[in-house]
Amino acid sequence: MTALDGQTERRCRDSFRRQQAMATIGASMLSVASGEVEIAMPFSERLTQQHGFIHAGIITMLCDTACGFAALSLMPADSAVLTTEFKINLLSPAKGECFIANGRVVRPGKNLTVCLGEVFAEQGGKRKQVALMTASMIAVDTSSGLRD
Amino acid sequence: MTALDGQTERRCRDSFRRQQAMATIGASMLSVASGEVEIAMPFSERLTQQHGFIHAGIITMLCDTACGFAALSLMPADSAVLTTEFKINLLSPAKGECFIANGRVVRPGKNLTVCLGEVFAEQGGKRKQVALMTASMIAVDTSSGLRD
Amino acid sequence: MTALDGQTERRCRDSFRRQQAMATIGASMLSVASGEVEIAMPFSERLTQQHGFIHAGIITMLCDTACGFAALSLMPADSAVLTTEFKINLLSPAKGECFIANGRVVRPGKNLTVCLGEVFAEQGGKRKQVALMTASMIAVDTSSGLRD
Amino acid sequence: MTALDGQTERRCRDSFRRQQAMATIGASMLSVASGEVEIAMPFSERLTQQHGFIHAGIITMLCDTACGFAALSLMPADSAVLTTEFKINLLSPAKGECFIANGRVVRPGKNLTVCLGEVFAEQGGKRKQVALMTASMIAVDTSSGLRD
Repeated sequence: MTALDGQTERRCRDSFRRQQAMATIGASMLSVASGEVEIAMPFSERLTQQHGFIHAGIITMLCDTACGFAALSLMPADSAVLTTEFKINLLSPAKGECFIANGRVVRPGKNLTVCLGEVFAEQGGKRKQVALMTASMIAVDTSSGLRD
Repeated sequence: MTALDGQTERRCRDSFRRQQAMATIGASMLSVASGEVEIAMPFSERLTQQHGFIHAGIITMLCDTACGFAALSLMPADSAVLTTEFKINLLSPAKGECFIANGRVVRPGKNLTVCLGEVFAEQGGKRKQVALMTASMIAVDTSSGLRD
Repeated sequence: MTALDGQTERRCRDSFRRQQAMATIGASMLSVASGEVEIAMPFSERLTQQHGFIHAGIITMLCDTACGFAALSLMPADSAVLTTEFKINLLSPAKGECFIANGRVVRPGKNLTVCLGEVFAEQGGKRKQVALMTASMIAVDTSSGLRD
Repeated sequence: MTALDGQTERRCRDSFRRQQAMATIGASMLSVASGEVEIAMPFSERLTQQHGFIHAGIITMLCDTACGFAALSLMPADSAVLTTEFKINLLSPAKGECFIANGRVVRPGKNLTVCLGEVFAEQGGKRKQVALMTASMIAVDTSSGLRD
């Protein structure tokens, strides 16, 4: 992971804080580097599906957000980022004390950026991969009215 | 849409109620028919991303859940359903008063069921499609310990 | 299906003829309408995988091409089309006398166009769906040097 | 990469040779290890789309096949493998002298195996990634009549 300049890091962290959905699910930004972001979330019963595992949609939110900010970290300062599509394979039921999503840029682009995301469940100090994502992020000029 | 027998409908509605994540995002099951389910959710600021739209992950949760129960409605009574993968294309920013996810079975299977999902935003009586999903659902025997 | 003006139809059919890969697999363009294209291909042993079914990749080629030309039919006259991503669910083994791919635009865009594709196998007058695709197509200005 | 026992390697190579589609596009199996397979294909005009690049569907075939055999290399001896779904992001136009697909198992399973695939274009000794795939492979018992 390559360190980001302070301004870009602040831009990513400020934008993350404006995502009310992240506060609602208890997620926090662990690290933000050049083209790579990690987001963590503790287990909460409020986020479970019918079997008591974390809902696939919540795991997806974490991973999509990590990928989105990984993309934003490489975009020009006047860009906002939007997800255009992603696909996720759920590898194991999401059970654990804590969940960590890692998003990395595979191919940056002026227009479209392609990312790879992984989500891990942690339990008793052990880590297990529970999801694998590929995603496309689009850069939108903030002059369009969208904030970064 | 073909009506379900009362027992299967009850099984789907009970299972939906056990999804705490659905209560957390304010979602409710509008309709459950044979191989087709609709889920609705009002707008809430708690679920937004940095531009004030509903987070892509929340739209995904709605759609994944509609697809999952559409699949469950066609599975044997001793089955639980788990998502193995999905892909979603986000067609427009998710702004509106209310969001409706429709999940339909395209190909039922003993093992894997493939579904098509669509999410619509409603605003001032108008409806606009905001997402398109394809998903694979797997039937797990409840004798494995998973509830339906 | 809405008819296309003659010039756009000719542009799509000429571009299809320049795809040598389509001749190699024996595919032909059945119909091209506004935002919807059908492509057909007879069975050939040269295109099979180890079980004697048509290779998943060949089914994918048909469907990707139908989606790409469906997108091109709605793009400005100075555009070329490139696939940025697709996902396909293979619903049944591809066995039959003939295969027909239908691609339709779900959401046209100045930049990205999202399509839905379906492939059917025909055998003894019966038709069975064998694949379901969602795809993103990007418009590239032909001034970049790419032909349409 | 972990070496395979001779019998499993032979099983994979024999199965690859039965894929007539691979001969048609001029592909060969470079290497087969435990959970990882590489397939190569030289450029051919017969496989191009309208801009003279290799057709996205052909790139997909290579990658799907590498993933399928990576999965088969970890399956029991009486299994055949079928693709249930994949998604591919096309990162750059497929131009080059030679194309190499690498498929790796991310999560093996008794039933479903999830793989990650990458395709690279080689030109003048340089290698550039042109595609990224995630895929689900299903094991089918050969007692069903399918050969491995």
